[in-house]
Amino acid sequence: MRPIGVFDSGIGGLTVVKALRDLLPEEEIFYIGDTARLPYGTKSASTVERYSFEIADMLLAENAKIIVVACNTASAIALPLLQEKLSIPVVGVIQPGAAAAASATKNGHVGVIGTRATIESCAYETALRAIDKNLRIIARACPLLVPLIEEGWLRDDVTDRAIARYLAPLVDSGIDTLVLGCTHYPLLRDAFSQFLGSEVNLVDSAQNCARAVTQLLEEKQIATTDTTQTARLTVALTDKPDAFLDIARESLQLELGEVLVRDPAERPRHR
Amino acid sequence: MRPIGVFDSGIGGLTVVKALRDLLPEEEIFYIGDTARLPYGTKSASTVERYSFEIADMLLAENAKIIVVACNTASAIALPLLQEKLSIPVVGVIQPGAAAAASATKNGHVGVIGTRATIESCAYETALRAIDKNLRIIARACPLLVPLIEEGWLRDDVTDRAIARYLAPLVDSGIDTLVLGCTHYPLLRDAFSQFLGSEVNLVDSAQNCARAVTQLLEEKQIATTDTTQTARLTVALTDKPDAFLDIARESLQLELGEVLVRDPAERPRHR
Repeated sequence: MRPIGVFDSGIGGLTVVKALRDLLPEEEIFYIGDTARLPYGTKSASTVERYSFEIADMLLAENAKIIVVACNTASAIALPLLQEKLSIPVVGVIQPGAAAAASATKNGHVGVIGTRATIESCAYETALRAIDKNLRIIARACPLLVPLIEEGWLRDDVTDRAIARYLAPLVDSGIDTLVLGCTHYPLLRDAFSQFLGSEVNLVDSAQNCARAVTQLLEEKQIATTDTTQTARLTVALTDKPDAFLDIARESLQLELGEVLVRDPAERPRHR
Repeated sequence: MRPIGVFDSGIGGLTVVKALRDLLPEEEIFYIGDTARLPYGTKSASTVERYSFEIADMLLAENAKIIVVACNTASAIALPLLQEKLSIPVVGVIQPGAAAAASATKNGHVGVIGTRATIESCAYETALRAIDKNLRIIARACPLLVPLIEEGWLRDDVTDRAIARYLAPLVDSGIDTLVLGCTHYPLLRDAFSQFLGSEVNLVDSAQNCARAVTQLLEEKQIATTDTTQTARLTVALTDKPDAFLDIARESLQLELGEVLVRDPAERPRHR
């Protein structure tokens, strides 16, 4: 069975794997987290693009039938070029997240948070405006949230203060919908809700990305026909697993099995 | 003139460059910050070791006469092997920092803070106990401090709270000396002092490392004989410079000139 290839700069993309497992339990998944070089969100566009192609090459070597870029930064920067250069379908998380936000907002004021690289790319603004050019969008980079999550400070007053600092201008501007534009952020859903109150919709890309994958598998007629059992999930990282893998595994209740370690330098370059 | 080669995972090692410039203005310096793959402090020992050799190779290609590992994580993990494998002298920051702390403490209670990888290596404990086996040492990883510094939140209540959380157990144990075991941390010197009070000595490795370099240049008779002018300082990064370079440049009052961008993948591997 050819797997669905999924990659992220680290472990955060497992939120997308979780959504794929729920929706498509019969599809084999090969996940690569580029933990040896994370984070992508603070690196330049050219470096993120190079890393994305190197990891995509590793997934092609695993005979992936489709690639899911489960990383907002890589989706924001490298998706168009990956789609152009690779011979198999490539799906990102930006378009599904933007579509969900555009559906969710009632007052047309949408907030977007993400890494510095994602926000600087303006990828969410572009995707949102393509859906509805009248949306009012306010975007903000929140570089500390990923380190706070990886430290495991999920319910913590230091994290709450950082969230308040980052989100206050978005609340002041009257948003009713917030796009969690980084695959780590769903792990802070409770802390966001506490600060924002129940009137603000929180949108993450995981479920919508999984729906986009389902649709694409059907369109391209590459969905598996063997639906009798739960298929294999393989997780490979470019560095040895650390404590954050356990935080994510527990938080997502995901059965991972043995975790492989792969070196991207050992694979031939795609271009 | 053969330069002193200096490297760090990022920009933090410029604190060591600053100390070298002050002490040895006539020595040319070639600095490499591995910003495309930073941070090292959250990565595994084998990955940090591989990166350290790749960057050392780049410095050898610049005809460096000595290599200064201006990164606590790389010093903690890769220094012995670098010293064994390379044909030129290699100096780290751990030994000079440990020597300074052992001199500074009056009550024999020394605290050490650093990245997760540095603290897990126990390199400071080993170096401190080699100097005085009766020292009482308490070490703590502080993974959020580097991201907070890179966000520029140097005097900030979020940072103060994170510092209080990390340092409280060290204060409770009665330390009178704290080793700032990461080249970023001197940028938080004021915030540390505010929490710890004036009774606790803050030790950073930069000055002591620069003294160790001076001594080694004399011993090996490789100090420059041209002492008539301030020599060139070249800074190369493996990714494009970002805002943190400006924070560091301003905070250190360091004249950097043009910053080069180099790709470690383009150099031949050392081993």
